[in-house]
Amino acid sequence: MKKLACFGAGRIGQVHATNAAAQLGVALIYLVDPVDTPARTELAAHTGANITNTDTVFDDPSIDGILIASSTNSHGDLLMRAAKAGKAVFCEKPISLDFALTQQVMEAVEASGIPCMMGFQRRYDASFRAVHARIASGMSGSLEQLTMFSRDPSPPPRSYVETSGGMFRDSTIHDADMARFLLAEEIATVYAVGACLISDEIGVAGDVDTLMVTLTTVSGRMANITACRRGPMGYDQRLEALCAREVLNVENQTQTHMTVSSADGKRLAAPENYFIERFRQAYAAEMEAFVDLLENGKAPLAGIRDGYEAQRLVEAALQSYQTGVPVAFGADWTPQGGAA
Amino acid sequence: MKKLACFGAGRIGQVHATNAAAQLGVALIYLVDPVDTPARTELAAHTGANITNTDTVFDDPSIDGILIASSTNSHGDLLMRAAKAGKAVFCEKPISLDFALTQQVMEAVEASGIPCMMGFQRRYDASFRAVHARIASGMSGSLEQLTMFSRDPSPPPRSYVETSGGMFRDSTIHDADMARFLLAEEIATVYAVGACLISDEIGVAGDVDTLMVTLTTVSGRMANITACRRGPMGYDQRLEALCAREVLNVENQTQTHMTVSSADGKRLAAPENYFIERFRQAYAAEMEAFVDLLENGKAPLAGIRDGYEAQRLVEAALQSYQTGVPVAFGADWTPQGGAA
Amino acid sequence: MKKLACFGAGRIGQVHATNAAAQLGVALIYLVDPVDTPARTELAAHTGANITNTDTVFDDPSIDGILIASSTNSHGDLLMRAAKAGKAVFCEKPISLDFALTQQVMEAVEASGIPCMMGFQRRYDASFRAVHARIASGMSGSLEQLTMFSRDPSPPPRSYVETSGGMFRDSTIHDADMARFLLAEEIATVYAVGACLISDEIGVAGDVDTLMVTLTTVSGRMANITACRRGPMGYDQRLEALCAREVLNVENQTQTHMTVSSADGKRLAAPENYFIERFRQAYAAEMEAFVDLLENGKAPLAGIRDGYEAQRLVEAALQSYQTGVPVAFGADWTPQGGAA
Amino acid sequence: MKKLACFGAGRIGQVHATNAAAQLGVALIYLVDPVDTPARTELAAHTGANITNTDTVFDDPSIDGILIASSTNSHGDLLMRAAKAGKAVFCEKPISLDFALTQQVMEAVEASGIPCMMGFQRRYDASFRAVHARIASGMSGSLEQLTMFSRDPSPPPRSYVETSGGMFRDSTIHDADMARFLLAEEIATVYAVGACLISDEIGVAGDVDTLMVTLTTVSGRMANITACRRGPMGYDQRLEALCAREVLNVENQTQTHMTVSSADGKRLAAPENYFIERFRQAYAAEMEAFVDLLENGKAPLAGIRDGYEAQRLVEAALQSYQTGVPVAFGADWTPQGGAA
Repeated sequence: MKKLACFGAGRIGQVHATNAAAQLGVALIYLVDPVDTPARTELAAHTGANITNTDTVFDDPSIDGILIASSTNSHGDLLMRAAKAGKAVFCEKPISLDFALTQQVMEAVEASGIPCMMGFQRRYDASFRAVHARIASGMSGSLEQLTMFSRDPSPPPRSYVETSGGMFRDSTIHDADMARFLLAEEIATVYAVGACLISDEIGVAGDVDTLMVTLTTVSGRMANITACRRGPMGYDQRLEALCAREVLNVENQTQTHMTVSSADGKRLAAPENYFIERFRQAYAAEMEAFVDLLENGKAPLAGIRDGYEAQRLVEAALQSYQTGVPVAFGADWTPQGGAA
Repeated sequence: MKKLACFGAGRIGQVHATNAAAQLGVALIYLVDPVDTPARTELAAHTGANITNTDTVFDDPSIDGILIASSTNSHGDLLMRAAKAGKAVFCEKPISLDFALTQQVMEAVEASGIPCMMGFQRRYDASFRAVHARIASGMSGSLEQLTMFSRDPSPPPRSYVETSGGMFRDSTIHDADMARFLLAEEIATVYAVGACLISDEIGVAGDVDTLMVTLTTVSGRMANITACRRGPMGYDQRLEALCAREVLNVENQTQTHMTVSSADGKRLAAPENYFIERFRQAYAAEMEAFVDLLENGKAPLAGIRDGYEAQRLVEAALQSYQTGVPVAFGADWTPQGGAA
Repeated sequence: MKKLACFGAGRIGQVHATNAAAQLGVALIYLVDPVDTPARTELAAHTGANITNTDTVFDDPSIDGILIASSTNSHGDLLMRAAKAGKAVFCEKPISLDFALTQQVMEAVEASGIPCMMGFQRRYDASFRAVHARIASGMSGSLEQLTMFSRDPSPPPRSYVETSGGMFRDSTIHDADMARFLLAEEIATVYAVGACLISDEIGVAGDVDTLMVTLTTVSGRMANITACRRGPMGYDQRLEALCAREVLNVENQTQTHMTVSSADGKRLAAPENYFIERFRQAYAAEMEAFVDLLENGKAPLAGIRDGYEAQRLVEAALQSYQTGVPVAFGADWTPQGGAA
Repeated sequence: MKKLACFGAGRIGQVHATNAAAQLGVALIYLVDPVDTPARTELAAHTGANITNTDTVFDDPSIDGILIASSTNSHGDLLMRAAKAGKAVFCEKPISLDFALTQQVMEAVEASGIPCMMGFQRRYDASFRAVHARIASGMSGSLEQLTMFSRDPSPPPRSYVETSGGMFRDSTIHDADMARFLLAEEIATVYAVGACLISDEIGVAGDVDTLMVTLTTVSGRMANITACRRGPMGYDQRLEALCAREVLNVENQTQTHMTVSSADGKRLAAPENYFIERFRQAYAAEMEAFVDLLENGKAPLAGIRDGYEAQRLVEAALQSYQTGVPVAFGADWTPQGGAA
């Protein structure tokens, strides 16, 4: 029986805590969230966890691992404490919005040798994973051009934009991670354009709401990320991988399989509302993988270094957007003067 | 150079005359239509044909073949005259609405030995033909269950229903022919249900507007025709062939390849409006096949006997609908007391 | 807290027991299965249920309801005991393979007034349910022609065919229930054709493996069921509802949303393997509905009479297949001389 | 009756000459091609045109317009002669591979006032045109992100690459024109990456075979062109337009509407082979538009300035690829030192 603690009782904390509690051979012992809400109470009741504070978790030697689903600015500190306490970690992205701290935490975690898995759930989605597996099997031939479409249903409020690190760091990091996962090669150049086209509030907050990133790898392969804070069809997460022998696409997952045909044509159902619905099975698969890491030492699809590298990539995209010229990326590039 | 005459300057006559005139090595010499309309004048001008009467065509020994696209009640007589004059014939369905006459004409045409092709244009459509070719090649395995959807955009006026022979003879004959084309085996039983659900006028005219036909072959394979005089999405012609190793479908042909995605889901373009648009290429291919028959004696995909057999099949379906019990079909069945 | 007992620890018993145990406010107290298998042991451990015998369940007054997922020939007796004991029932189809007994059980259950829900899980599938809801809302206009495709991945072994009641009673009952659910009107005629085309073993067992059923309602609307024990694409469950204003389709649910495009065209992923995978969410929704029935008295989408009526309908289809003529159905029709 | 002459009897010359000859009210008088091939003879016979030389065409005052479908290096001279002779022109892209000459010709044509239409046939394709019309109507809201996929079935031979001006000028010009057509706003920046990933021969010829171009407009809207000389699924021409209220896509046009479903999933037919097949109807619509220009003065969808601007855009993309930095485009940018 593996004993876990979960930090965060918000939307994503509920997902991870519930999935962890439903695993055979796992007990969720603690739930930590400083804010006393009905959601926290209900989540504790449903999962059988005790509500407690951070120190209790790290002082309890019976706890095997922690789930970090708390606010972004707490991730770095919790990772450092877990590294020190020798507890396994499942951590939601990002490591930190401060790049210097991200690097420092990554190095500490690696030095500690604790099992650590980053929550890039797309890697565990059946469709994205099938694309990765098919390319990795050699069946498709070399991946030459990768295109990702990544659009949210509607723009977040200004308050969220101001604390989340902005669109590149908060949202595009998922696409950057997927690009790294599929290209599986060192990135050579990063170029980005961005604009505030749809939300005045986001412009006031100094961020973009619409962007495109172009990457090349050292062997000349290329990728494009096309992202927007608003998707007219709702949550819109698609991908196209041109390979030497075939083209692989990930299409949206619709809410039902009903189609409606009339004089206007045949209409498919709308995509799943948002990430909680779209990636429901991916989140469950992610938690199974974390348990597999705990019990059997099986390496996860994304580790702490993947968290670091995806952040490094979006820092380069942000810098390119800000300067208007491509960034000569490579193994050693880091943002000038730390993250803005 | 093959010389042709076309009977009929209406909608379908325009299609056939224009396609014939556009063929290399073909000249459309005569156009026959008793009604003097602007459409007749324009069609003659565009195809270079002379407007004349029936006798002139059959008296002119230089005419190699005729296209019968005139009103239904003239088909039988023109076929008989062509058989007598030894001219090749391309004939729109049906041979006649009177079954006894249909049989008589079929026998006369076969006895005469004239080249004769029936205008079942679906057989020349790239998609329906691809299904036939794939099954015939053995790749799909045995066809076990065939389902056809056949729906018009909107019900015809009462006047049309009263002179066209009714839904079974006028419309379902196309599906009956396709069933024969694909099943390629003797039909054993025919059962039909029908109702007047959508057009009061059609009910007043004594016809149905909605029907289903179930066929079995002597080896036990089966087919269903689901047809309606009204299709909410417009002209709706689809088919599914369950074979031993794969399922083949013919989907509708959309007007464009544009899709529109919004919060309501992804919407494909509407199907082509009606048969003239949907089967534009099939009509052209049909006329190429007729020229190939004239020039090289190449057998068409549908001959006079196919016209007869398709009519025999819909007579059986009509009788089953009227009596409420299945018809024991077979090589020798003919409607009791002639066609109703 | 509602206390339940589950009969049956096989494939479908595992689904229902697990779903029940995962509900908030529900405890699975007992598991009854006469055969001591590792699966029974594991299921008891995972759900927290005690393995016991039938009498214990019915003698325990604290048990609120039972789940009947045991072998078909035990359903009738368990329903009768539940009716007598006043316990709510969730029962897998069918009530019994013996029609006289089916009728007797249905009457006893109705007389007892116990809450009773039949496990027609398609009614709880998001897509089939969306079709029902849309038609019921009036948005689509009147349903005029209903077509169902129902194909298993591969034929069952001869032993299964011999004890399951045959294809009509075992498999087509799901489609018959869906036809009743969507048509929502008295059935007037039932006609069926069938053949043994794909499995010699099934023929030896005296059953068909391929069939079509045509139904009409008293107002003239019509439905077709096209079913086969083998589906070249795997488990194949689709539906088309022609309504006055639009056409609704339920398409298959694919295993992933990855498409693969090559010179052979664009290929979608295969459908979910079989009913356990395809209806995973429907089974969960079904158990939520049963709890809603227990806790709030909310009527389920299918009750004991729906179980009886679906069976009556497939008895009529079977008789039509055997006699070769349509059955004049209606509120009072029952199979001649009891079930064959 | 409008009298035309066609220059070029090759693949695209055959398309334009045949389409022109099929128009009512049009006569193709001359066909000019210096190489005496069977194709030239057959084309002349089929269209009724006389084979002649360039001077005859321009010396014949009865000729209303010319179709330029000859080799690329003859376009500029023929346009200059038409401008001088006051004859209307339909001209295949490009004006010239030499940018200075392109500019000179464009100015001469504009000064002459002759009707002039550039052969960007995608603008006349029903699907691409429907996207343009829908955006122009205001129904979709503002176009914010445009993505184009443009892939040939297989790389051209080295000889073609060496004389065609390379991938940017020869192929990407179509996508550049479509971007201009849809964005309908001044381009602000152009960035391109490219590589030779699939054809060694193309690398030897000094060209790329795989590229991505990113454009921004002065208001911040953005477009991506993803292109490759090889498409695993064949000719692959798709587009996605993210607008404020909906997402518009142009999908590939398949060869048939047959789908094949097996254990591997459902497979659509392959796309039309190549541009002649894919744009058959667009070429016909283009020629109708040219006749409309001749007869009624109706402005075509693409004129000489569109030819010039699309070339200017691909020159910028080429320069960005060569220098590795974005080009600050604008109304006045021209390639440094003329085209390479």
